[in-house]
Amino acid sequence: MGSPVTHWSVQSSNPVQYEIRACQNLLDPSNSTILEGASDRGAQRRFIVTDRVVDSLYGERIRAYFEHHGVEHRVLVLDDGETHKSMDAVLRVAEALDAFGIDRRREPVIAIGGGVLMDIVGFAASLYRRSTPFIRIPTTLIGLVDAGVGAKTGVNHNGHKNRLGTYFPADRTLLDRSFLVTLHERHISNGLAEILKMALIKDARLFDLLEHHGAHLLRTKLQSPAAMGPTPADVPVDQRLAARGLHLDPATEVVERAIQGMLEELQPNLWEKVLERVVDYGHTFSPTIEMNALPELLHGEAVAVDMALTTVLAERRGLVSAYQRERILSVMEQLGLPSWHPLCTPEVLTGALRDTVRHRDGKQRLPLPVGIGSAVFVNDVTEEELSAAAQALREHVAGVSR
Amino acid sequence: MGSPVTHWSVQSSNPVQYEIRACQNLLDPSNSTILEGASDRGAQRRFIVTDRVVDSLYGERIRAYFEHHGVEHRVLVLDDGETHKSMDAVLRVAEALDAFGIDRRREPVIAIGGGVLMDIVGFAASLYRRSTPFIRIPTTLIGLVDAGVGAKTGVNHNGHKNRLGTYFPADRTLLDRSFLVTLHERHISNGLAEILKMALIKDARLFDLLEHHGAHLLRTKLQSPAAMGPTPADVPVDQRLAARGLHLDPATEVVERAIQGMLEELQPNLWEKVLERVVDYGHTFSPTIEMNALPELLHGEAVAVDMALTTVLAERRGLVSAYQRERILSVMEQLGLPSWHPLCTPEVLTGALRDTVRHRDGKQRLPLPVGIGSAVFVNDVTEEELSAAAQALREHVAGVSR
Ligand SMILES: NC(=O)c1ccc[n+]([C@@H]2O[C@H](COP(=O)([O-])OP(=O)(O)OC[C@H]3O[C@@H](n4cnc5c(N)ncnc54)[C@H](O)[C@@H]3O)[C@@H](O)[C@H]2O)c1
Ligand SMILES: NC(=O)c1ccc[n+]([C@@H]2O[C@H](COP(=O)([O-])OP(=O)(O)OC[C@H]3O[C@@H](n4cnc5c(N)ncnc54)[C@H](O)[C@@H]3O)[C@@H](O)[C@H]2O)c1
Ligand SMILES: [Zn+2]
Ligand SMILES: [Zn+2]
Repeated sequence: MGSPVTHWSVQSSNPVQYEIRACQNLLDPSNSTILEGASDRGAQRRFIVTDRVVDSLYGERIRAYFEHHGVEHRVLVLDDGETHKSMDAVLRVAEALDAFGIDRRREPVIAIGGGVLMDIVGFAASLYRRSTPFIRIPTTLIGLVDAGVGAKTGVNHNGHKNRLGTYFPADRTLLDRSFLVTLHERHISNGLAEILKMALIKDARLFDLLEHHGAHLLRTKLQSPAAMGPTPADVPVDQRLAARGLHLDPATEVVERAIQGMLEELQPNLWEKVLERVVDYGHTFSPTIEMNALPELLHGEAVAVDMALTTVLAERRGLVSAYQRERILSVMEQLGLPSWHPLCTPEVLTGALRDTVRHRDGKQRLPLPVGIGSAVFVNDVTEEELSAAAQALREHVAGVSR
Repeated sequence: MGSPVTHWSVQSSNPVQYEIRACQNLLDPSNSTILEGASDRGAQRRFIVTDRVVDSLYGERIRAYFEHHGVEHRVLVLDDGETHKSMDAVLRVAEALDAFGIDRRREPVIAIGGGVLMDIVGFAASLYRRSTPFIRIPTTLIGLVDAGVGAKTGVNHNGHKNRLGTYFPADRTLLDRSFLVTLHERHISNGLAEILKMALIKDARLFDLLEHHGAHLLRTKLQSPAAMGPTPADVPVDQRLAARGLHLDPATEVVERAIQGMLEELQPNLWEKVLERVVDYGHTFSPTIEMNALPELLHGEAVAVDMALTTVLAERRGLVSAYQRERILSVMEQLGLPSWHPLCTPEVLTGALRDTVRHRDGKQRLPLPVGIGSAVFVNDVTEEELSAAAQALREHVAGVSR
């Protein structure tokens, strides 16, 4: 023990490691993926959280799965939808965990649902006993390509989007695209908005795929015959397909490029210490628009409106050509996404920007597209510029192109 | 961009760094320590949280301090005491933060108060926008040597002690022992319990100091004439005193050894990934005892009862001699701490151990003292052993020594 001093500097580091894996037939009783890694110390118990809609569609299969494996379990069913993404829901999870009782660390909580459900359960898991491991099984497209991929958890509070939350990745995320079959088309569009975001800011090839296949992907709910075959899922898809002399099917390539791009951006900045993040594109004005329009606009729809607005803003700055802007707005339309909302008033947009500036430590740090597939940060957007961009967007959308 | 694969492993690391500094006259307007590190970008604003009692004692000086420095501020005053350490209080902080509005990162939230207040504010800061920096100014002894030193935040929930929380250290903790002057003696005892914990498990010299000076330290509320002089606080205390040919005064040495010992244990295990922690000594049965006795027992008092019980348990295992057990119980008495509580029934103790086992991932990992100043972990404590130890403790305390 060193001599006592009146000044201490403490340094430490929290290493995290987590897995994201594409799987098939997750709920098939013969598939043990969900329970993988479980120690054999004594009988297994699992606490599962899902939402009302997912429970009505998959609840029986979920229960049958754990019964088949002889795992004592409890399925907590939360209300679904953005309006229920609240601290109340987080506390319900905590209280149900108290009642069920799990051994910390070796009995991970299992979240099966969309972005809302995973954000709530991840938040609860991070707080419960100051951290309790969990597994994510996304059942929506937003969940598969975005909410299930990063480390962010959270809930809305006091009228603000994701005002409270933590950084706490699931130990494992298991991606099974077949859940999308039951998803309403509008929610597929919703997820395509986050994919389009990745395309616009960093992946021109992904944009091309959306431009050529977007409408088809929407209709077929990103089910790709090739990916659904019996090929083992742990071989890289392109290797599998290449081995058979095939190209990646668009659905698989779109999903995997989106995830890959997201992880490239997240991994070096998992705790968001760097405040300039291209993946924040579409998330400058949308939090306020989404919350003000609740429950009318879905998350991805609000993001789409933000992207449309900032695309026009970028066009007015000469960063995007009129032709590129046309292509972008037209892809949005193909993907079933809105590009305008009446909440795009100067007051709402200015208020939204003010809140985002607080969030980004006093600067706008606003990502704008540069052409298609690249981005730049700006700090000097004025209220007048915003109004003019909103006005121009409205005219484009109304077909009154100038 | 690499070729897409169907399996991703994400690795990242969150480095943290924070300061703990002993200071004097923190609230003196001529002292700029609290505002140090503030950037000069524009006008400063600060959001301060304190509790009702601290506000009644120091509120005027706090406000005068920020006024003097021309800092726009808001002081949020929370109810004091363990029964108010709840999620409600955390949400009140978040809502008041929304109303005040601060720039993330450059306008740290300031928590002035005891362990309860700091645990609440630290929790709120960690959740608010998924992390908002904060500064701790502890005003109790528990705050100075324990709650202000580590990274844990949290609140009680659903009848369970610290059931929800995060790991989120303050950027800076500023230690000013002169706050203790107004603290009730019972709360000094309360803090001495955590210091005694450090002594028992790893610092025999600290135990000696408590044995010889404990009663005096309690009466004088750990005010040391030497430390209160005008010597600059950023010179190590022992160097300052050595330069004057003096030894460390007991109050200073006790506080600094306690903090030093705590940091030695915390730094390599800030996120508590290692579940065997000597600093958990006294915290196996006490969470349940504290919550069941609320508001009768203070945190440190419940810890003292746990330490008395486990000392006797260790004695019965031959790890501690009867003489050492006598010394320990007698130091507790000198420090004004209880060593027995009627809640030490077999049922309560067994239930408490069961919950701690869940927390420690299926094993007891129970630290027991080995002599004075050292510890060992055991996993095989039985209900019978617990009952017998409780019975023996009760008889010792009643003076019916066997
Ligand atoms: N944490 C992150 O990094 C992150 C990233 C992106 C989005 N998000 C959050 O995710 C949320 C949006 O996610 P979402 O769109 O998945 O919302 P959601 O969870 O509300 O799901 C949308 C609807 O689909 C239903 N549903 C889910 N799976 C289904 C299935 N397989 N078949 C039929 N219906 C199904 C749900 O019950 C719900 O009614 C937002 O709150 C957003 O903030 C978080
Ligand atoms: N986060 C950690 O690592 C950690 C470590 C140890 C304890 N704790 C927590 O700390 C809490 C106990 O801390 P505490 O004992 O400081 O409790 P506390 O904050 O309730 O303070 C005790 C009482 O003293 C009053 N008070 C505070 N400063 C005063 C002053 N200078 N003069 C007069 N009165 C004053 C308070 O208003 C309160 O009534 C427990 O909840 C415990 O779980 C946390
Ligand atoms: Zn999003
Ligand atoms: Zn304690």
